[in-house]
Amino acid sequence: MRFDVFADLEYTAQTAGTLILNIHALRTPTQNVISEAFTIEPYLKAEELVGLHGENRLVRFEIPEPGPIKISYKATVDNACKLVDLANVEETPVHQLPVEVLQYLNPSRYCQSDKLFRLANNMFGYIQNPFEKVNYLVDWIFYNVQYLSGSTNSQTSAYDTVTQQQGVCRDFAHLGIALCRALTIPARYFTGYAYKLYPADFHACFEAYLGGEWILFDATRLAPLNSMIKIATGRDAADSAIANIFGDIYFDRMAVNCKLADEGFSPFYYQPKATQGISYI
Amino acid sequence: MRFDVFADLEYTAQTAGTLILNIHALRTPTQNVISEAFTIEPYLKAEELVGLHGENRLVRFEIPEPGPIKISYKATVDNACKLVDLANVEETPVHQLPVEVLQYLNPSRYCQSDKLFRLANNMFGYIQNPFEKVNYLVDWIFYNVQYLSGSTNSQTSAYDTVTQQQGVCRDFAHLGIALCRALTIPARYFTGYAYKLYPADFHACFEAYLGGEWILFDATRLAPLNSMIKIATGRDAADSAIANIFGDIYFDRMAVNCKLADEGFSPFYYQPKATQGISYI
Amino acid sequence: MRFDVFADLEYTAQTAGTLILNIHALRTPTQNVISEAFTIEPYLKAEELVGLHGENRLVRFEIPEPGPIKISYKATVDNACKLVDLANVEETPVHQLPVEVLQYLNPSRYCQSDKLFRLANNMFGYIQNPFEKVNYLVDWIFYNVQYLSGSTNSQTSAYDTVTQQQGVCRDFAHLGIALCRALTIPARYFTGYAYKLYPADFHACFEAYLGGEWILFDATRLAPLNSMIKIATGRDAADSAIANIFGDIYFDRMAVNCKLADEGFSPFYYQPKATQGISYI
Amino acid sequence: MRFDVFADLEYTAQTAGTLILNIHALRTPTQNVISEAFTIEPYLKAEELVGLHGENRLVRFEIPEPGPIKISYKATVDNACKLVDLANVEETPVHQLPVEVLQYLNPSRYCQSDKLFRLANNMFGYIQNPFEKVNYLVDWIFYNVQYLSGSTNSQTSAYDTVTQQQGVCRDFAHLGIALCRALTIPARYFTGYAYKLYPADFHACFEAYLGGEWILFDATRLAPLNSMIKIATGRDAADSAIANIFGDIYFDRMAVNCKLADEGFSPFYYQPKATQGISYI
Repeated sequence: MRFDVFADLEYTAQTAGTLILNIHALRTPTQNVISEAFTIEPYLKAEELVGLHGENRLVRFEIPEPGPIKISYKATVDNACKLVDLANVEETPVHQLPVEVLQYLNPSRYCQSDKLFRLANNMFGYIQNPFEKVNYLVDWIFYNVQYLSGSTNSQTSAYDTVTQQQGVCRDFAHLGIALCRALTIPARYFTGYAYKLYPADFHACFEAYLGGEWILFDATRLAPLNSMIKIATGRDAADSAIANIFGDIYFDRMAVNCKLADEGFSPFYYQPKATQGISYI
Repeated sequence: MRFDVFADLEYTAQTAGTLILNIHALRTPTQNVISEAFTIEPYLKAEELVGLHGENRLVRFEIPEPGPIKISYKATVDNACKLVDLANVEETPVHQLPVEVLQYLNPSRYCQSDKLFRLANNMFGYIQNPFEKVNYLVDWIFYNVQYLSGSTNSQTSAYDTVTQQQGVCRDFAHLGIALCRALTIPARYFTGYAYKLYPADFHACFEAYLGGEWILFDATRLAPLNSMIKIATGRDAADSAIANIFGDIYFDRMAVNCKLADEGFSPFYYQPKATQGISYI
Repeated sequence: MRFDVFADLEYTAQTAGTLILNIHALRTPTQNVISEAFTIEPYLKAEELVGLHGENRLVRFEIPEPGPIKISYKATVDNACKLVDLANVEETPVHQLPVEVLQYLNPSRYCQSDKLFRLANNMFGYIQNPFEKVNYLVDWIFYNVQYLSGSTNSQTSAYDTVTQQQGVCRDFAHLGIALCRALTIPARYFTGYAYKLYPADFHACFEAYLGGEWILFDATRLAPLNSMIKIATGRDAADSAIANIFGDIYFDRMAVNCKLADEGFSPFYYQPKATQGISYI
Repeated sequence: MRFDVFADLEYTAQTAGTLILNIHALRTPTQNVISEAFTIEPYLKAEELVGLHGENRLVRFEIPEPGPIKISYKATVDNACKLVDLANVEETPVHQLPVEVLQYLNPSRYCQSDKLFRLANNMFGYIQNPFEKVNYLVDWIFYNVQYLSGSTNSQTSAYDTVTQQQGVCRDFAHLGIALCRALTIPARYFTGYAYKLYPADFHACFEAYLGGEWILFDATRLAPLNSMIKIATGRDAADSAIANIFGDIYFDRMAVNCKLADEGFSPFYYQPKATQGISYI
């Protein structure tokens, strides 16, 4: 499907500094960036940095002096995701996981899976089919964690969320990832633009490695699983933050949107007892 | 029933210091200390301090110089507990709680009930009868938290245990208390000698305030509920530690025991769907 | 000195519930409540509960139905504090502390002194005079912790603040208490009305037990030490919160003030190398 | 210099499982593995996985059935490190950092630099020369954190250590890394064999990116800086653990050693007011 996305971000720099943004649509075999435009006002020279494994497209620029900064990004993107039949999927034994997947079993800043081992296994360990297992834990998050804007901050991690049971999409994703890893299922953070997300914002969800594919899960249930334009994947938000700020530079406001530029979009929402998952790439 | 209890504790002082012990059987209307003996080797003068509300009997003594210290406590105690019918108990509204009970709704060092509000209400909030509610959460602890000696330390709190799901009797008690308070049920820490506890040790469990009585719960299920000789109650182990040590004084070893000095003891273990609880005044 | 204090608090009840407020000026031998008035709009019957040791005056009332609630408290209070000479004060050994003071050595919900033992002793252990010791740690808090409204919440504790170094008066007080206790100096939380506090609000600071007196310290340096009308003392904010809310009752706004009703007030601010402290009984 | 290293590790598998070991000496332009031997008893087929950026050499093998497992690794390694003059080094601005270095500014599982920003800047922010800055923080760790075997575990992180001030080499390294990142200095974890380390063990220290080089720091001061055989670098111990265990496989014991196979080794220990650092690669 084809989507038009845009993001406007405004900052005020109190001092000189550097901004690293992670808002460009990723280029992948199944996600084609037809056209895009990125501007900074006032004009600043920006450098594009492609992540070492093609997992993100960073834009870095120096802010030489104090003042307001306005960033605009627009793109038209064709993407495709595929349905994967997971009715009979089996757990991939650790000794068969590809080396580049192994790191997604490790605990990370916001996903302390090492601390959730007993909890995850007590709650979900008895489920045989790993797709069903991840769906159950995603359901548990949806039913128990309250979506509450402003209830968490950039330091909140899965270890907090599993107990305090409130948060935003980022927290839902971190908890999903941490539970998967505690169950020896590789999982990674996914950020993107999402069609039909309300209110419009950047979205975060996660991918679990099942049957040799990265399958997308969204414990917030706020957007169709097949409406995502991928920005980045990473271990967690420490890798994949929308912005990394160096210097006294304050975020003022932003506007984000994702519109359908095509016809015939048929939303794929999570269904109880589903046997198929969605995979990008 | 009549019980003989003893505790031998050995320490090594590297420096002068002070030791405050909390190992004496409490004197209450229903717990009668028939005889007791307390000795320190080498001889040191000890002072008995009775807690402000009769909730403990501390013994404090100065250790004037380095060296080994051996403490022995022996007592013969008659105690009585009563069965309380709780089949139709109702929650006591906060505006009817006695003022001395109110503090047991507050979070404390090891029982951060303020952080468990959503979790406790999501898990147990739907249960009407508060006795049933506490029994359910005690069962949940029993089935999910693994009893594992050495897995926790004196800094471990309910906030850790609810996630990491391992610990000893103290951790089981702290988690029970924290969950009760998060459900607006006053709860306090209880330490004592316990008959038939294996391996023999000091025991910790907790009391919840239900129907105007302090009802005893033990999520470890390691001892009969009617075999306890109360040492102290308090908000948590910060109030009711067996020993508070000031100075470089190291714990070496201890032996604790509790024997029946009577006949005809009939153990009262927790039963699923019980309608009666045990209360020590 | 004589002060006029008032506090207006507004809440909205979404459901029935109970409110326990802790905003009344305490009655002590040196603090005389000349007159006071407490009203609830719409009218609700309130019950006054005096803390077990006279450490606070709670007001508890049931809110029978949803709706807005407005509480007003006004009082005229005479209080007196004394200057205590601490130039040659010595540490009180633990074996000489009064039994009612001992509890203020224990860790509590927001003051995890047990986790700060090495840090406190590394930083301040070398200082001999305990008054100087507390002044040094209070200075360290003042110079290192940034006063930043909204940076913390009701779950923030001394363990967070010592590292994250931001907070409000409550956090400054908790950190001061925790460091004192880690240094084996009893310390307790103090809330009150404070003259010349800007912006006007309830204030929190702490008392340390030195030379047999409770000496007041305020690491925020936001108000004169001799301008406080005591509301409560306790182990920390878990004991001494301005409000404990049971039910879906939301805080809307408040106004607090403290005016001089006398002449000749001479503010006593903390001075480097001070040899005298302020004590309210 | 040439060194002979060996590591013997013994495990007991209670179930089938998988082990991923990270004990092989790394091959780099300046570290030449002359010969090596790796054996598993009983024989198991092992697969070598080279980290995506050459940052480690993992060995993975499936354990098909319960029983004891003994692993032996021996190698003879030539390595070289260089002295780097850092007397006049300047901070590398973020907009000039190579893309592969940027990730080492991010917080990670055991190095929550985002929570230490104020603390690090309050303590060390005033120091101009970044090499001096890192030396100061390493000194602070050395003087304040007590090396205490068994005081921490695999969940302990820099956020704990900065306050609790006890730990082992891994904790010292994590704290150094977290403080560097909080000061906008890229830093990464380093594990290796270390000559003259007593007691012999695997060692952990860290590298900071200064003047375009990765400079080695060791806050434990337990081994000469020029005696290390690099095993791996990574964000923290989550990336670079000696062993990742999947299944009920328990560690029993190990023996590690590093001997000089050459003559003329001249140990380079950290010196106060040093102007030169050590860099491998």
